[in-house]
Amino acid sequence: MSNYIEPIARLVNMFTKLPGVGAKTAQRYALKVLSMSDAEAQNFVDAILHAKQNVKLCSVCGNYTEQDPCKICSTRDHSIICVVHETKDVDAIERLGEFKGVYHVLGGALNPANNVNIGDLRFAELFRRLQKGDTKEVILATNTRVEGEATATYIARFLKGSGIKVTRLAQGISSGSELQYADEVTLSRAFSNRQEI
Amino acid sequence: MSNYIEPIARLVNMFTKLPGVGAKTAQRYALKVLSMSDAEAQNFVDAILHAKQNVKLCSVCGNYTEQDPCKICSTRDHSIICVVHETKDVDAIERLGEFKGVYHVLGGALNPANNVNIGDLRFAELFRRLQKGDTKEVILATNTRVEGEATATYIARFLKGSGIKVTRLAQGISSGSELQYADEVTLSRAFSNRQEI
Repeated sequence: MSNYIEPIARLVNMFTKLPGVGAKTAQRYALKVLSMSDAEAQNFVDAILHAKQNVKLCSVCGNYTEQDPCKICSTRDHSIICVVHETKDVDAIERLGEFKGVYHVLGGALNPANNVNIGDLRFAELFRRLQKGDTKEVILATNTRVEGEATATYIARFLKGSGIKVTRLAQGISSGSELQYADEVTLSRAFSNRQEI
Repeated sequence: MSNYIEPIARLVNMFTKLPGVGAKTAQRYALKVLSMSDAEAQNFVDAILHAKQNVKLCSVCGNYTEQDPCKICSTRDHSIICVVHETKDVDAIERLGEFKGVYHVLGGALNPANNVNIGDLRFAELFRRLQKGDTKEVILATNTRVEGEATATYIARFLKGSGIKVTRLAQGISSGSELQYADEVTLSRAFSNRQEI
């Protein structure tokens, strides 16, 4: 138990709500905020309020946006939809600057053990988009853990026989890494997905 | 470079001002705040504003407080002053529940290389307290790194010949740790500070 006075204890407690932040780290953050000038602390508060007031979900793809539909949905090729878990996956792919299609952000990964079920993710919205008939390809860019595989399998099954091409990001050895350090599943997938050169 | 929209990028940037938070962690925090309910985000903001508005420095000891002088300075024995760097050191000692004296929070450690000089810490306030003549003992609970030692030495020199007893927290092997893992300085201090039992 900490002996901090109430306003500090309350701030520490708020910081523990951030992902991966325990009591010690939350204390460091709270004391840092206290040591900020009033203007800096106000900037912090304004940034939170500004983000909460101006950021919403795109009604098409489910990504965070200021305008609806979002910039990507407003300007890009809707015949290819890349399905991801989270907004940070969109950010990672956009940083490559190569993909010209649009996204669908599910809002998580299927994980019944953690109470993330089919109804909790934006599957219905995805299937409604696909029923419009403009889609030629769905790229399943879900993660390669059990939940990501389950999520991809669920979508792939739904689309079977729809005539829409369904692809999955290639799995294999990471670029620049040594064979000996790859885990067995990765190595096995790299073998079965081997490419003729 | 990240492709987040402006309100998110701004929030990410604010989080990087917290100690030890890089771009990736700041993104996780920002996305977590966005996923909070409006009420939760408002609680976050209120906790920051509440702390900034209600927490000040105690005019006697320099610790964070809501009332001035602070609860510790108002109720405890002023004949023993324990000198520490930061408010979190007070918290650590208070958690023991053993010390009955008061504190003096310097606000940091002497570190000329990082531009923390004598004028930046609350030394003058300490010496003014000591000149009142109520003090029998000053416990130097500064850290055991170079900066903490320099800070302690500076105070000890100032008090030489003042008749005030000056003590330093014992240094030695940590409780429950193996001799072989102690660094040389620690082991050497444990030897020179050995106690008759």
